[in-house]
Amino acid sequence: MSYCLGMRLKAGMVFVSDSRTNAGVDSVATFRKSFVFDGAPDRVVTILTAGNLAITQSVISLLEERIATYNGQPTLYSVRSMYEVARLVGETLREVYHTDASHLKNHGTDFNAALIVGGQIQGRRMRLFNVYAAGNFVEASEDTPYFQIGETKYGKPIIERVINADTSLEEAVKCALVSFDSTIKSNISVALPIDVVVVPADACHATIRYRVTEDDAYFKSLRRHWGEGLRRIFSELPEPEWASNIPVK
Amino acid sequence: MSYCLGMRLKAGMVFVSDSRTNAGVDSVATFRKSFVFDGAPDRVVTILTAGNLAITQSVISLLEERIATYNGQPTLYSVRSMYEVARLVGETLREVYHTDASHLKNHGTDFNAALIVGGQIQGRRMRLFNVYAAGNFVEASEDTPYFQIGETKYGKPIIERVINADTSLEEAVKCALVSFDSTIKSNISVALPIDVVVVPADACHATIRYRVTEDDAYFKSLRRHWGEGLRRIFSELPEPEWASNIPVK
Repeated sequence: MSYCLGMRLKAGMVFVSDSRTNAGVDSVATFRKSFVFDGAPDRVVTILTAGNLAITQSVISLLEERIATYNGQPTLYSVRSMYEVARLVGETLREVYHTDASHLKNHGTDFNAALIVGGQIQGRRMRLFNVYAAGNFVEASEDTPYFQIGETKYGKPIIERVINADTSLEEAVKCALVSFDSTIKSNISVALPIDVVVVPADACHATIRYRVTEDDAYFKSLRRHWGEGLRRIFSELPEPEWASNIPVK
Repeated sequence: MSYCLGMRLKAGMVFVSDSRTNAGVDSVATFRKSFVFDGAPDRVVTILTAGNLAITQSVISLLEERIATYNGQPTLYSVRSMYEVARLVGETLREVYHTDASHLKNHGTDFNAALIVGGQIQGRRMRLFNVYAAGNFVEASEDTPYFQIGETKYGKPIIERVINADTSLEEAVKCALVSFDSTIKSNISVALPIDVVVVPADACHATIRYRVTEDDAYFKSLRRHWGEGLRRIFSELPEPEWASNIPVK
């Protein structure tokens, strides 16, 4: 499993991913799942990946190779819109499907992959897409300005309470880290380090590319404050009157 | 989906279940998933059910019928230990499997059911079991004093932070309701009313059997306090230094 979160706010975009991969509990490793494409001056594209690592690494490798050996075919740097970027990612995923899916099936493995693709091309608006295993995709909206892929449930309640299109980038980063903390506490298939990418609106480049490790003083402090705060507000909650006949032991 | 939670604490046992069932989003209904067997003076057994409603209702009906038409075969009121209670529930589930599973398969439906079974027989200790679809089961321990079945993830973080064997019954009820609130907010397949059963240690009967409805003043107040509290502690969290170069829009 993995956990990745992408948000498209008025102030900009925030992308956060864990880095645990596992093929069974006896094969656990650390791999980056966040990829920033900022080699062209007019755009920035960030891709987060979840699912089968061989599939998602192939997609990223193909996208990178085609930028490096440009011969006129569409690349992340040559297409003209973020919609075309999402289509290109989806088509590349379909290419990997055609190469690998039948072989995976021979070994009883589903073709399992999900990608969050977001970015901005100069003079155009920021866009955020959720690309499914079939290569089709949906776009984030004002009403639902974020996408989660992978192990999404443990960390969803805090996002639902905090994030809306007007949330600041700092608040969004904090909320993402709280969401990852909850997920990491509940599911060993999601783990540190956490990669954070922040792309302010109209900047067309990532102003923050930060890796939160086990030793990160800020993340430690955030976890402690959040845990203590939760217990405090929990203890301050009103008691149910109808529970007043529970005998105290 | 459903969400059920059973806890076995030193002070007693708490059982909480939602009541939404659905066969597709166009077939949504309300059914009780919590069943208290307290018709014998020496024991109390509570069963919570999740999964295919036809299966779990059959299990409960068979258990009830055999109590009513007692002819010497083991029933929830005749067996001598909570271990035997769990075995009886598991065997009844296997009976339904033999009757129904192949027919379900003909219609492309898995045999999907999970039950939480807990209680106490006078003079013996409280025990809590998680009975799987195969009719086998595991028992809660001092280290992990609770079981969740159904839609377990959204509501798990708060339970993990608050519940341990020494938690009081009042705190456990509050924590369960917070956990249900988070789940209900995130997943439309879990919904009010919520049924709460509290069985204090050595009481051998349920002192509370309460249904939390949409109009419940306490639950409304709990939700409001919890939501406001979360936003308050979130806003008080420290800011990441490394995010200080995020431009403020």
